Amino acid sequence: MGSVRAALRLHGGVVDLGGADTRATPHWTGGKHEALADIAAMEPRLAELQERLYAQAVAGGSRKRLLLVLQGMDTSGKGGVVKHVIGHFNPSGCHIHAFKTPTRDELAHPFLWRVRHQLPAPGIIGIFDRSHYEDVLIARVRGLVARPVWARRFGAINRFERTLHDDEVTVVKVFLHISYAEQRERLLKRLDNPDKHWKFAPGDIDERAYWPDYEEAYEAVLHKCTTDTAPWYVVPSDRKWYRNWAVSRLLLEHLEDIDPQYPPAHFDVEAERARLLQT
Amino acid sequence: MGSVRAALRLHGGVVDLGGADTRATPHWTGGKHEALADIAAMEPRLAELQERLYAQAVAGGSRKRLLLVLQGMDTSGKGGVVKHVIGHFNPSGCHIHAFKTPTRDELAHPFLWRVRHQLPAPGIIGIFDRSHYEDVLIARVRGLVARPVWARRFGAINRFERTLHDDEVTVVKVFLHISYAEQRERLLKRLDNPDKHWKFAPGDIDERAYWPDYEEAYEAVLHKCTTDTAPWYVVPSDRKWYRNWAVSRLLLEHLEDIDPQYPPAHFDVEAERARLLQT
Repeated sequence: MGSVRAALRLHGGVVDLGGADTRATPHWTGGKHEALADIAAMEPRLAELQERLYAQAVAGGSRKRLLLVLQGMDTSGKGGVVKHVIGHFNPSGCHIHAFKTPTRDELAHPFLWRVRHQLPAPGIIGIFDRSHYEDVLIARVRGLVARPVWARRFGAINRFERTLHDDEVTVVKVFLHISYAEQRERLLKRLDNPDKHWKFAPGDIDERAYWPDYEEAYEAVLHKCTTDTAPWYVVPSDRKWYRNWAVSRLLLEHLEDIDPQYPPAHFDVEAERARLLQT
Repeated sequence: MGSVRAALRLHGGVVDLGGADTRATPHWTGGKHEALADIAAMEPRLAELQERLYAQAVAGGSRKRLLLVLQGMDTSGKGGVVKHVIGHFNPSGCHIHAFKTPTRDELAHPFLWRVRHQLPAPGIIGIFDRSHYEDVLIARVRGLVARPVWARRFGAINRFERTLHDDEVTVVKVFLHISYAEQRERLLKRLDNPDKHWKFAPGDIDERAYWPDYEEAYEAVLHKCTTDTAPWYVVPSDRKWYRNWAVSRLLLEHLEDIDPQYPPAHFDVEAERARLLQT
């Protein structure tokens, strides 16, 4: 198979999101049907790696864990990845947090404060649906803080993610890339189905006027916050099946790289067996 | 189908756990194969009810939610229910918490303090893997607190669960009932498989000496804390497939009873549609 990581990974150069093909399927030559079959084939392996990661921490004292950071425009599929990809893991070993508009209490603290409270414990797979990157995205585009404030945050984020790496957190940052036209289609589908009206707000349309500003803000993020220890992966996401396949495979490759092992027994197995049989 | 609730529900009378058949399959006449098929058939309905419950809260202002409380002896399958039953839900709409030995900080607070911090938000399905009931189970059996202290807790628990009911939390309390012999088999399986050694601790065997005491403590819980608003359900759990089937169906019946509805649009759908098409 080779590595989907290599195919989707950024290297810190200048990024042109407008020029990228959001319907592309990098590192995948098959169609939807084959991709769904490949996802199903990955599931047992993902489940075992997750259990090993968990076991290694709770019984072996390892601090290793993984943090998946999901970013993308509205309707890009962050919630879909949680449902369709993370939904295949054992929920006991996942910690999912969706970052919303900061509360008054959160705003009274440094911007990374609320993020630190949601980090996965050792052995756990953490999932951020939005993240600290909102503090250099919406905060910049909608002018919630002054330019010097958000401009300083890129460095703070890189230092923060470096400390995560040093604490054995594997950080996997995924940008779900959809086109302006695809977002229109997805919002239309929500309007056309009464069961999906709850997902729609008129403000979603107003926000589209800021698309070029968000694109510029995302390009800055992908350029400035791609480091050796925490690079960004750009997943073309107009095709949902490819998005789910690519994120599944990114997780698989990173977990295989961690290579977690079941910890050895800290007791005499035969002695315990004999003792148990007497009860 | 009738109701599995009626078949498994206690009514506050005296309970004799030792006399109950832990291999029974109440309200199910088929075998394992048919039960697994029935679970699969329930999944779309469970998924839709979960989404409606969530939508009704986030877009409709409802406070309704569900809290599944899982209790049972070691190896009874609390983790198995989370993996195999809760694993079928959208993880975004679930809040799972496993209560461990209380920390020093938790012990410095009233026993319900840490529980209040883990209650599901409106629209969320909460799952307690162990719960406040440990404070009248292990706390009683192992003498962690004096008798007058734990004896007072039954009333405190009933009042607490009444306040949950009043705040629109549907509390579903499930006791996973396995036999003494079945626990031995399950512990043996853990010893026989090196990949499962991390789940075993020699203390698990020592704890078996207290089986009659735990049984007595559970009987007190099931007798004293079965109320009209938060009854206990006893699920015979020697057969894992029946356990998963019964918990799935209990959740389905309770969610159907809540009968959550997608909230209506708070905007003019046609006007928004026209506005979107101009972007």
